[in-house]
Amino acid sequence: MDATAAEGTVRVEVDLAGRSYDILIGDGLIASCGSEIARRMPSVRCAIVTDSNVAAAHLATLVESLERAGIESATITLDPGEKTKSFAALEAVVDGVLGARLERGDLVIALGGGVIGDLAGFAAGIVRRGMGFVQVPTSLLAQVDSSVGGKTGINTARGKNLVGLFHQPRLVVADTAALDTLPPREFRAGYAEVVKYGLIDRPDFFAWLEKDWRAVFTGGPARQRAIAESCRAKAEIVARDELETGERALLNLGHTFGHALEAATGYDGARLVHGEGVAVGMALAHRFSVRLNQCSADDAARVEAHLGEVGLPVRMADIPGSLPGAEQLLSYIAQDKKVLRGALTFILTRGIGRSYIARDVPASEVLSFIQENLPE
Amino acid sequence: MDATAAEGTVRVEVDLAGRSYDILIGDGLIASCGSEIARRMPSVRCAIVTDSNVAAAHLATLVESLERAGIESATITLDPGEKTKSFAALEAVVDGVLGARLERGDLVIALGGGVIGDLAGFAAGIVRRGMGFVQVPTSLLAQVDSSVGGKTGINTARGKNLVGLFHQPRLVVADTAALDTLPPREFRAGYAEVVKYGLIDRPDFFAWLEKDWRAVFTGGPARQRAIAESCRAKAEIVARDELETGERALLNLGHTFGHALEAATGYDGARLVHGEGVAVGMALAHRFSVRLNQCSADDAARVEAHLGEVGLPVRMADIPGSLPGAEQLLSYIAQDKKVLRGALTFILTRGIGRSYIARDVPASEVLSFIQENLPE
Ligand SMILES: NC(=O)c1ccc[n+]([C@@H]2O[C@H](COP(=O)([O-])OP(=O)(O)OC[C@H]3O[C@@H](n4cnc5c(N)ncnc54)[C@H](O)[C@@H]3O)[C@@H](O)[C@H]2O)c1
Ligand SMILES: NC(=O)c1ccc[n+]([C@@H]2O[C@H](COP(=O)([O-])OP(=O)(O)OC[C@H]3O[C@@H](n4cnc5c(N)ncnc54)[C@H](O)[C@@H]3O)[C@@H](O)[C@H]2O)c1
Ligand SMILES: [Zn+2]
Ligand SMILES: [Zn+2]
Repeated sequence: MDATAAEGTVRVEVDLAGRSYDILIGDGLIASCGSEIARRMPSVRCAIVTDSNVAAAHLATLVESLERAGIESATITLDPGEKTKSFAALEAVVDGVLGARLERGDLVIALGGGVIGDLAGFAAGIVRRGMGFVQVPTSLLAQVDSSVGGKTGINTARGKNLVGLFHQPRLVVADTAALDTLPPREFRAGYAEVVKYGLIDRPDFFAWLEKDWRAVFTGGPARQRAIAESCRAKAEIVARDELETGERALLNLGHTFGHALEAATGYDGARLVHGEGVAVGMALAHRFSVRLNQCSADDAARVEAHLGEVGLPVRMADIPGSLPGAEQLLSYIAQDKKVLRGALTFILTRGIGRSYIARDVPASEVLSFIQENLPE
Repeated sequence: MDATAAEGTVRVEVDLAGRSYDILIGDGLIASCGSEIARRMPSVRCAIVTDSNVAAAHLATLVESLERAGIESATITLDPGEKTKSFAALEAVVDGVLGARLERGDLVIALGGGVIGDLAGFAAGIVRRGMGFVQVPTSLLAQVDSSVGGKTGINTARGKNLVGLFHQPRLVVADTAALDTLPPREFRAGYAEVVKYGLIDRPDFFAWLEKDWRAVFTGGPARQRAIAESCRAKAEIVARDELETGERALLNLGHTFGHALEAATGYDGARLVHGEGVAVGMALAHRFSVRLNQCSADDAARVEAHLGEVGLPVRMADIPGSLPGAEQLLSYIAQDKKVLRGALTFILTRGIGRSYIARDVPASEVLSFIQENLPE
């Protein structure tokens, strides 16, 4: 761990040639955002994009920190929730940024969870054909996943994240203390993405999580370690495959099923939030891999046991309300952008920490598997 | 001129390392689009974006050509006109492309003028975070300017082209015969951009246009030569400065005033189309350079004489209807994205073919100049 000036802060670098950037991870970092930004980008102006939940808890701290560093900011506050990743909200953010008369070298700052990060990053990528962008992720999911790697976007009626672009931030500031105000359910949902990195290719990390997850939930050094290890895992993959032409697809472990379930529940956060969909999706991906004789039943059971222990859903039956039929669920998968030329691409696994990209999974196998796993 | 297989076709390359592409310029090329695409991108599927004017004249030719090459296509037809460069139309194109179930490696084809090219290119850049894109420009302006160089975007209430991205096409097919159906006023407007290349840095080209412009308007080899020379001029600048961090700004000659006038006339094509705004803007930029003691009055008069001779407007008084006051016009300029840190950036000139980027033009000078040149 490379320590920076600020005591206890961990720095992880995302290595992208001329566009490398730092992820800073530490306790109370929102209060030092201003100086971190001013040091890297002198005389910049900002528009902060946030949602009303996050604004109530953390906006004043950020604005004051910017002010102390002599940085002017405008604020654009949106409704919380996945429905905010829409064309309408994109247009509102674009208008707010233009209204603040920011220029190409100025900054859009995303203060919030993955919804705000994805939306604000997309806006930053298209206003004046690309402005500067800084992520201040405030949900666990955003700190370990969505704020790192430059994927931005919105949803449309035809599916999640089908529209957007790659626009890398110049800096990511993850304040681990900001997670104290996060609803416990959201923390748990984000934890699914932490587990994901263990399941992709870090079996020791997974084993550590099985043992020490309670400390991660409590806060302190274990939480910071889990976040830093997750960022490192993601940064390594992104550095090798920024534009997802290959292995970056591994990060979609659990997401093919997960996205279909999110679509099937109408993106209704009361029923299922993203990380919960990923938890069910990862459990299903392991069980599906068992069915295809790729993975041992023991490993699939271990995954399910750990996710279940922390309180995450692991079966479709755990999702409140009724789900559509198997064909309908399959059609959500086939619309998903991981479909290549009709052949279904899935992230499968040969066991814990041994995920791989399978490019020719027959749709019929997926259909039977869903049928077997649907409740009733 | 590098000839390709097709007799008489001129090929101009836009040299962008791994993303270089060809501009093909020739008579009747829409009918061979299918084979040119199939040769470069085998087994691709397409969505054609066009407007109703262009569809009536050229869509069937394109679709048949694609069919002959075994390429499936869906078509999205929009209303003609600058107002189509909007968020609403962008959303419609995105939805149409997703509805056609195209994948990341598939193509969006823009068949139309600069409006369709800018909009479709933007959509291609954001659907699935970037799809393939081919330009089939059908207006003179699009053939010599907007289809080359990868700038895409839409307008908002706050100004023209403030939202978009750089997304290079994989191929540009300019059918010079397609211009036969273009309304004469639109041809003339596009001709302003041809003249622009002469004024930027090709004095001999400008002199040739002064002499032979009638042949360019008539069609045949002179027209093809003018288009090819324009594409070559633009391709050279784009290859040196793809993302407009420097000299690419020269392509904005006449555009700072021009955009302000378009905004001031509410983007109402009945009063002023883009190329006409550029014609007035170029005449003003030369006159303004005279006022700043940079350019001789003779050169400015020569520019005005040539633009006037072909029937283009050259003074604000030539624009039908009333214009807002000088302060209001200046505020359109200051909102324009070529403003850097409050200092006005202008493309000025030391004479025909000797344009340069001036970064510190005092707003007060611009204001007095506008006041002197406003009608009444
Ligand atoms: N870009 C990527 O690479 C990537 C990766 C994974 C997920 N995502 C996207 O991320 C989104 C999910 O992110 P999310 O789970 O952060 O959702 P979110 O942004 O909706 O945040 C979850 C909820 O927590 C609230 N919240 C956030 N931080 C808070 C805090 N510190 N205190 C109090 N409340 C707080 C929010 O207001 C919201 O209600 C999805 O849209 C998903 O597609 C993107
Ligand atoms: N991306 C760039 O680098 C760039 C450069 C310059 C201009 N532009 C943009 O280009 C736009 C102007 O382009 P334009 O002048 O082509 O406008 P346009 O696309 O509106 O076309 C002009 C008119 O001619 C019609 N038309 C086009 N081709 C025709 C044909 N062959 N037969 C019959 N009718 C035809 C159209 O329907 C329209 O009514 C502006 O929005 C401007 O901002 C972009
Ligand atoms: Zn996720
Ligand atoms: Zn132009």
